Amino acid sequence: MTESETKTEVSPVEDKPKEETAAAGAETTATANEEPPVKEMRAVVLTGFGGLKSVKIQQKPQPTPAEDEVLIRVRATGLNFPDLMARQGALDNLPKAPFIMGFELAGEVEAVGEKVEGFTVGQRVCALSDMKAWAELTAVPAKHCYPLPDGISYQDAAAVLVNYTVAHSLLFDVANIRKGQTVLILSIGGGVGQALAQLCKTVKDVTVIGIASKAKHEQLNDVCHHLLERESYTVTQVKKVAEHGVDVVLDCSCGEDVSRGYSLLKPMGRYVLYGTSFFVSGETKNLFSFAKSWWQVDRINPIKLYDDNKSISGFNMRHLLFQQGQHAYIAEKVATVFDLFKSSKISPVVDSTWAFEDIAEAMQKMHDRKNVGKLLLDPAKEPKPRPVEPEKPVKVGRKESRKDKRNKEKKESEEKSKKEADEKKAAATDKKSDDAKEANDKDASKEEAKKENGDAEEKEKSKD
Amino acid sequence: MTESETKTEVSPVEDKPKEETAAAGAETTATANEEPPVKEMRAVVLTGFGGLKSVKIQQKPQPTPAEDEVLIRVRATGLNFPDLMARQGALDNLPKAPFIMGFELAGEVEAVGEKVEGFTVGQRVCALSDMKAWAELTAVPAKHCYPLPDGISYQDAAAVLVNYTVAHSLLFDVANIRKGQTVLILSIGGGVGQALAQLCKTVKDVTVIGIASKAKHEQLNDVCHHLLERESYTVTQVKKVAEHGVDVVLDCSCGEDVSRGYSLLKPMGRYVLYGTSFFVSGETKNLFSFAKSWWQVDRINPIKLYDDNKSISGFNMRHLLFQQGQHAYIAEKVATVFDLFKSSKISPVVDSTWAFEDIAEAMQKMHDRKNVGKLLLDPAKEPKPRPVEPEKPVKVGRKESRKDKRNKEKKESEEKSKKEADEKKAAATDKKSDDAKEANDKDASKEEAKKENGDAEEKEKSKD
Repeated sequence: MTESETKTEVSPVEDKPKEETAAAGAETTATANEEPPVKEMRAVVLTGFGGLKSVKIQQKPQPTPAEDEVLIRVRATGLNFPDLMARQGALDNLPKAPFIMGFELAGEVEAVGEKVEGFTVGQRVCALSDMKAWAELTAVPAKHCYPLPDGISYQDAAAVLVNYTVAHSLLFDVANIRKGQTVLILSIGGGVGQALAQLCKTVKDVTVIGIASKAKHEQLNDVCHHLLERESYTVTQVKKVAEHGVDVVLDCSCGEDVSRGYSLLKPMGRYVLYGTSFFVSGETKNLFSFAKSWWQVDRINPIKLYDDNKSISGFNMRHLLFQQGQHAYIAEKVATVFDLFKSSKISPVVDSTWAFEDIAEAMQKMHDRKNVGKLLLDPAKEPKPRPVEPEKPVKVGRKESRKDKRNKEKKESEEKSKKEADEKKAAATDKKSDDAKEANDKDASKEEAKKENGDAEEKEKSKD
Repeated sequence: MTESETKTEVSPVEDKPKEETAAAGAETTATANEEPPVKEMRAVVLTGFGGLKSVKIQQKPQPTPAEDEVLIRVRATGLNFPDLMARQGALDNLPKAPFIMGFELAGEVEAVGEKVEGFTVGQRVCALSDMKAWAELTAVPAKHCYPLPDGISYQDAAAVLVNYTVAHSLLFDVANIRKGQTVLILSIGGGVGQALAQLCKTVKDVTVIGIASKAKHEQLNDVCHHLLERESYTVTQVKKVAEHGVDVVLDCSCGEDVSRGYSLLKPMGRYVLYGTSFFVSGETKNLFSFAKSWWQVDRINPIKLYDDNKSISGFNMRHLLFQQGQHAYIAEKVATVFDLFKSSKISPVVDSTWAFEDIAEAMQKMHDRKNVGKLLLDPAKEPKPRPVEPEKPVKVGRKESRKDKRNKEKKESEEKSKKEADEKKAAATDKKSDDAKEANDKDASKEEAKKENGDAEEKEKSKD
C-alpha cells in the first residue's frame, strides 16, 4: 500500500464517514491517530512517472501558506503540454512522485503569509506554480501570483495566463516581430498557437501561416491567413504564399520540422523553439525516441548562422521563472496580456473544460493534438458519467459528492468502487515492482544519455 | 608575365610616356595595338590570394557604367576586416584574382547608366561594392548607391557607411537592444566596435562593457562604461560589473570567446556573431587554424537554447546585400545612420587615412588590431616617403606623379624603379609557380574541408 503510506507520511488525513468516501469512489484511507483533524482537499496527483494510469484524484491535506506565500482557492486551472511531459518524467527538476500536478491557476486569495504585501483575502488572482496547481487549494510564492483585472472570468484568466504570456514573450521579445513580416506557426491549433495568431493581429500587416492537423482545419479557418496541413505541407506550399520565405518560425515541437523551418527563413529570419513536444511520442516516455530526438536535432554551427544571417532562439517559461528567477519580467508580461484582454485585443479560445476526474481524457485529447484552443480543469465541475463497466484508466475520487446527486449515483458508485477495490487489491501486489520499474527506467534513461552524450552531461551540470 | 597578360586581356591600356611610368614605378605595360586610347586609373589590385605582397597598385582601364550602374569618382574608401580575409582568400564567392579590392566608398557621380533613376552627375554619394571600391573610379549598381546628406565629408561618409550600418542592424534588428540592458562588445576598439558603443548611447540606460587590447585602453576610456583587457579578462571580471550577466554579446571573432560569451548571457540573452576574424591568424591564411576554428566552434543544439532561454544570431552584411539581395533593407538602414549623423547622434572615429600606396601598412595595422576606429584610404593622398632601400612589400605605382614634386622625387624614383625592375625580372620566373601554388592551396583547402566536413559541404551547397 505504497500510496496510502506516502499520504500518511505527508500529513495525517481527516477522519471521515466511510460511506461518503466509498460513494465517491475515493481512495483516501482513514488514519487511526487522534490528532486534531487536518482539512483535506481534492487534487490531481501524479503517483509515479508514466502513462495516464499514474494520474489519480486523491484527498490531500490543505496547504497552509508560508510567510512569503499566498493561499489560493482554485477556480480554474489550465492544462499545458508540459503537464504531459511531467507525467512521463520528461521534464527536468521534477519533484519526486507522488506530487500534485499543474502549472497555472486562477482563483481567490484564501489566506496570505505574514510577509506578503499587495494581496488581500478574497482578491481575485491568477498564479504560476511549478506543479501543485491542480488542486482545490494551493499555496504559491507571492512573486508568482498576479492580480486579476475586473471583468475577466477565472476560466478566461487561466486560458490567458500561460498561453498569452508565452506567446507575447515569443513574438515581442524573442522573435522581435515587426510591421509587414510573415510568421509561420508550426502548431497553430493549440492554446499557444492561437494566442500567437491573435497577437500577430496586433501588429500591422503581419501575415500568419499556420500548420495544423487536417482534422482541425474547419475550426481554424479564420485564425490565420494561410492554413496548411501538418500531414502533408511542403516547403513549396509555404513558398507559394511567402515567396521569399518567412521572417519568423515558431516551433513547439523541435522535431522533424526544424530543418524545414530553418530553410524557410528569410535572411534576418528567426527560428524560435518554445517546446519539445516531439519527444512525447506515446502515452509513456519513449526512451528511444527521446534519445533519438536529442541526437537528431541538427546542431548549429554559429558560423552557419553568420553565413545565413539567421537566428535560433529558445524560450522556456518554466525555466525562466522557476530556475532562472525572472519574476519581474514575467509579472510585467502577465500585466501586459491582461491589459490586452481588457481592451479586447485578445480573446482566449477555450477548447473545453473538464472535471479533475476526467483529467485522463483531457490529457489524451491534448496528446492526440485534438484540442483547438485551451483545455481547462474546473475543480467544481461534475465529472462525466462513468460507464457501469469502467474502462477509463483514471480512478476517480471525491471527498464530498454533490448531495443532490448522491442518491441517484449511489448504486452505480458502489458497484464501481467495489470493482475498483478489487482492482486495487490485485494491483497492490504489482504496484511496488511497477514503481520500481518506472524509477529504474528513468534512471536508466539518464545514465544512457550521460554515457552517450557529452553535451547532455554538460546540460545536466548547467542545470545544477 | 601572367600579370601584364591578364591586364591586356581585360582591356587595352593607354599608351603613355615611358619615363612617366618609370618615374612612378608603375607596373603598367604599353600595348602594341592602335585602338583608341583607353583611359586609365589607379587601383589597389589583389594579384593573387595571399600575404601583403599580393596587393599592388596598378593602372587599370577606367570602368564605364552598365545601364543600371552609377560611375563614381572615389574620394574616400574604407578598410574593413573582410578586406584582409579577401586578400587571404578566406571569404566565399570572391572573384578570380587579379581583382580590385574594397567594399565601400564615397565620392561624386561621374556618369550614370541609361536606366538609372534618382542619381545625377556630380551628386555626392556613397556606395557598397563587392570588391572594386579601392580605385579612382568605380561603377556600382544603382541599388547599392546611396545619396549623401549635405555637410558630411567623404571621409566621414566612408567611415560611417559599413560600420554604422552593420552596428545599427546588429543592435536594433538582431540583438533587439532595449532600455536598461547590458551589452558586452568583444572588440570595442575597431570601427564597428566604436559604432556599436556610440549607438548604445542612443538607448536609455544601456550599460556597455567593452573588451580591447590593453594597448588601446588609453584611447578608449570614454567609449564605454567598463573597459576590460582582451589579454586577461575573465568571467568573474564581467560578473563584477554585470552581476547577473549581460543581455547581449557582440562578437566579430568567433574564436575562443564564444563559450565564455554564451555563458555570460542572462536568460533571454542574445549572442550575436558578426565576423569570423579569429580565422585570420597570420599574414596568410592558416589552413590548419581555419579548419580548426570551423570545428572548434561549439555547435549548438537548439534544445540547449530552449533550456537556457538564449539566442544565437549571425549577421553578415556582405552576404545580406550581395548574395541574399536585401537591397531595400540596407538602403533604409544607410538612410537611418546618415540621419543619426546629421543629428549628431553619431560621430565616426577615424583612426587614420592612407594613400593607396600605403595599403600594406594599413592592412598590417588592422591585422595587428592596432587601429582605434576606422582606417580610410584616400586616392588623392600622397604616399609616405619610401626609404631609399625599400623594404616594404608593396610596389608603388601612379599614372601621374604630382608635377610639383616630380623633379624632387625623380632621382629617388629612378633608383627605386631600377631596383624594382630588377626585382621584377627575378620574380617573374618564380611568379607562375607561386600563383599556381596559391591556387592549389586554395583548392586543397576546399577539398580538405569538403572531405572532412559534411556541414561544410552543405554550406557550400546552400551558397549556390
